[in-house]
Amino acid sequence: MATSKGGRRYGRIRQRTFELFEPNLGGRIGYRLDWAIMLLIVLNVIAVILETVDSLAVAYGSFFYWFEVVSVIVFSVEYVARLWSAVEKEGYTGPITGRLSFASKPLLVVDLVAILPFYFALGGVNTDLRFLRALRLVRLFRLLKLARYSSALQSLGDVFADKKEKLVLAFFMNGLLLVVASSVMYYIEHPYQPEAFSSIPKAFWWGVATLTTVGYGDVHPITPLGQFVGGVIAMLGIGLFALPASILASGFIEQADKEKQEACCPHCGELLKEGAE
Amino acid sequence: MATSKGGRRYGRIRQRTFELFEPNLGGRIGYRLDWAIMLLIVLNVIAVILETVDSLAVAYGSFFYWFEVVSVIVFSVEYVARLWSAVEKEGYTGPITGRLSFASKPLLVVDLVAILPFYFALGGVNTDLRFLRALRLVRLFRLLKLARYSSALQSLGDVFADKKEKLVLAFFMNGLLLVVASSVMYYIEHPYQPEAFSSIPKAFWWGVATLTTVGYGDVHPITPLGQFVGGVIAMLGIGLFALPASILASGFIEQADKEKQEACCPHCGELLKEGAE
Amino acid sequence: MATSKGGRRYGRIRQRTFELFEPNLGGRIGYRLDWAIMLLIVLNVIAVILETVDSLAVAYGSFFYWFEVVSVIVFSVEYVARLWSAVEKEGYTGPITGRLSFASKPLLVVDLVAILPFYFALGGVNTDLRFLRALRLVRLFRLLKLARYSSALQSLGDVFADKKEKLVLAFFMNGLLLVVASSVMYYIEHPYQPEAFSSIPKAFWWGVATLTTVGYGDVHPITPLGQFVGGVIAMLGIGLFALPASILASGFIEQADKEKQEACCPHCGELLKEGAE
Amino acid sequence: MATSKGGRRYGRIRQRTFELFEPNLGGRIGYRLDWAIMLLIVLNVIAVILETVDSLAVAYGSFFYWFEVVSVIVFSVEYVARLWSAVEKEGYTGPITGRLSFASKPLLVVDLVAILPFYFALGGVNTDLRFLRALRLVRLFRLLKLARYSSALQSLGDVFADKKEKLVLAFFMNGLLLVVASSVMYYIEHPYQPEAFSSIPKAFWWGVATLTTVGYGDVHPITPLGQFVGGVIAMLGIGLFALPASILASGFIEQADKEKQEACCPHCGELLKEGAE
Repeated sequence: MATSKGGRRYGRIRQRTFELFEPNLGGRIGYRLDWAIMLLIVLNVIAVILETVDSLAVAYGSFFYWFEVVSVIVFSVEYVARLWSAVEKEGYTGPITGRLSFASKPLLVVDLVAILPFYFALGGVNTDLRFLRALRLVRLFRLLKLARYSSALQSLGDVFADKKEKLVLAFFMNGLLLVVASSVMYYIEHPYQPEAFSSIPKAFWWGVATLTTVGYGDVHPITPLGQFVGGVIAMLGIGLFALPASILASGFIEQADKEKQEACCPHCGELLKEGAE
Repeated sequence: MATSKGGRRYGRIRQRTFELFEPNLGGRIGYRLDWAIMLLIVLNVIAVILETVDSLAVAYGSFFYWFEVVSVIVFSVEYVARLWSAVEKEGYTGPITGRLSFASKPLLVVDLVAILPFYFALGGVNTDLRFLRALRLVRLFRLLKLARYSSALQSLGDVFADKKEKLVLAFFMNGLLLVVASSVMYYIEHPYQPEAFSSIPKAFWWGVATLTTVGYGDVHPITPLGQFVGGVIAMLGIGLFALPASILASGFIEQADKEKQEACCPHCGELLKEGAE
Repeated sequence: MATSKGGRRYGRIRQRTFELFEPNLGGRIGYRLDWAIMLLIVLNVIAVILETVDSLAVAYGSFFYWFEVVSVIVFSVEYVARLWSAVEKEGYTGPITGRLSFASKPLLVVDLVAILPFYFALGGVNTDLRFLRALRLVRLFRLLKLARYSSALQSLGDVFADKKEKLVLAFFMNGLLLVVASSVMYYIEHPYQPEAFSSIPKAFWWGVATLTTVGYGDVHPITPLGQFVGGVIAMLGIGLFALPASILASGFIEQADKEKQEACCPHCGELLKEGAE
Repeated sequence: MATSKGGRRYGRIRQRTFELFEPNLGGRIGYRLDWAIMLLIVLNVIAVILETVDSLAVAYGSFFYWFEVVSVIVFSVEYVARLWSAVEKEGYTGPITGRLSFASKPLLVVDLVAILPFYFALGGVNTDLRFLRALRLVRLFRLLKLARYSSALQSLGDVFADKKEKLVLAFFMNGLLLVVASSVMYYIEHPYQPEAFSSIPKAFWWGVATLTTVGYGDVHPITPLGQFVGGVIAMLGIGLFALPASILASGFIEQADKEKQEACCPHCGELLKEGAE
């Protein structure tokens, strides 16, 4: 506990800063701060997208640059403020150990990854053009910062978590089907299309395009046998590749059942609670 | 209340006109009037479609023109009659304020938008050819007038309303996936296909075609890395892009459950009839 | 009632013939007859398919011809036998009126349509080559004769019947979406692709290929605005075009509920009968 | 029962060998053995896939060869060990008859098929190049060996078994639709595209690509009538071709219901727990 007047003030500011970033303690200012940061994240992503349009990059190049600089400063201040005030949180009171364990939380790592590349580029650690272009891609990671604010995503996440086992199994089966379908098609079409079906890994490209029903049309069987086998694979396969969607649908229906089966019996008036919440 | 003989007759006609347009007061004539207007709307849409076929436009040009004139007159009479008789409706009794607030109801605005462009074109406010062609497109808005008559659409609308939150969330997630997938593909393919993947917004075209599984085939990755990443995106993505359909399916099943559900109370054991019919 | 010996024998044969074609009266011979006719129908369809392969048509032309002749004779005998013995059926006892009303039943009409074209061609009513080719297509109608034997199709038909209203509504909405999407795309792309988007009816081809996610790739927007609008339409549209599938899925789940919710209470042992059957 | 010391030891080793391959008797070593074999199977499949890449086949040819040799030796030892120790299993105690009936179990046949081709090739029974290439495809059958270890696949298999009848019916209906759609399109498009629609079997290629919504784009109708009919077929057809997925979805939901269902008996009001867990 700080006893000097300055120390007490320092503590109060740190306490207030901590509360600003906490979901239910921030009050009106914290609420606005959240929205401002979310807006900045979305604007950043839009900037990354628009910057790749040559005409815009030429015309507004310096604007994009300074927008990036300002954004990084804001995100840096946010990151430092979160870290600095972390010691107010229960279980993170140690000035160094507490902050370090706080900094290793996934959301804080995301915060760091979202700004660090800028400083690397600034420091000239690597001025390779390809590296600098990759840095721009990393800026899209800032989208992950949004995860902090979306309590609504949780309901969707619940469905995924609930069906995790079955989804993994479905993707595993789809993988098996893809391997078998692509290999069979490779053996059939390779002699006639040595370019498009030059190897099984290349045949995967046909397999994915067919089984997901995307069907770009750049690769497709041309032999009668290949077309027959391809047709059978497509007819059987789309059912299996729709499995993840079917499983998710079943998850949503179960969840809705849980949420809705709460009513009162008209005969005795007692609550009928089948699902929690 | 009008006391003169003429005034009383005027009032009776207005009352009858009002009833004609009300769902359950129109009687047999009102019922036929509804069907006649619906038929005219459908014929209008068919006319708009056929008019774009050059050979038909040349051969039946004047027919299309006069059909449009007659249609607009009918729709104008309908609009004026609805507005004029609106004062019979409870809550809209003010001759001017009542009619104004009635005119600002969505369905009445649709009615106005469906005829107004014709008068603009007639008045020669703007004789730009491009403007006149756009006017024809506006005539398709007349389809919205059908909304008034479809009580059956309501059941479908209920499902959408019930699942609004989840649908919005699903579309938001699809948007995120589209941004990330297109950006990654842009960085991979841009150096090898500078035309097709000239910018991230252009890469969206590939992203939408792939994730919706439309797959026109005009744009697709050609590098091994691009095809591998594209394949993974397609396999994961189709499950997510099928989410809206899954959510709607869950909504339909719940609705059917509500209509049919019969269960018993665990407290008193009596039958619970949740849905009427 | 026939009193002469020959008359009695005639009556017995007619009675036996009638029973042969009845589902539960035919016995072992009737059962085998059913399978023989089904097999002949399938072989007929395979013949129609193979006959279009030029090399097979040349090599086995006379075989296909005589197979057709034999098939038509068998189907003709079957048709005449059904009609002749129809008077044994309750409600069809009149020798002429009974047989006429029996002949106008859908399945009997199908039986007639399946053989009549052959006699037209034989009689030389029309020797136009195009007409003769169309006749071959009519032979595919023989597939409809299978409907008589498939009691399993009924369960599927129940789901369709149960959801008829919603399916009609879904297809109506899909039609609306198709009209609006194609019209909008026509107005955007027509100036830049006057060939592919020459009229709204032609733009339907793009609309169907996109909204069903088939995406042949022969027609697609090339302007940035067209691609943006097309992308939005595709993302929104696939959910709506999957509605029929969603509705059918909901129907299957309801049906399964009806069939399975029959169990005994472990506490009191009484039957829990929620579904009939 | 072996009475000599060596015989007793031989018996103990055979007993231990038998236990190693049994799911719940193998202990820690059996558990590790299972994982080692699974890993080897997966590595084998990866090897088959990579070997078709020319550059890798040239660079690592001898590695692939020796990896195959080692794999076959391991799988052979596994097969012989399983067969040798089979007499320890109840019902297979006869030294010859027991082993023969054990060898004819599906999983053991798969084990044999996975190694036999190698010995054929080694023995020089057939040195035809095409035959040797087909052998490589057979090596993919080793994937089937994985079936032994996946208890999780069972839950998926239950859904398929539960819905077998409906799935068969759905595939039958899809087949019917495919035949009719392709035949109709053949008669419409054949005169205008004699190459792409040269026969009904060739038109199947268009039918499958359209109804599964893959839509490669190599074959599509070009006449207005063909495009109209094709559009109608596509709109109606995708609902039917999604039936298998809908049926599977319904199966998953039922299964989840069984696992989670809790209801009350209408006769005594007590809770009915239908699923365990």
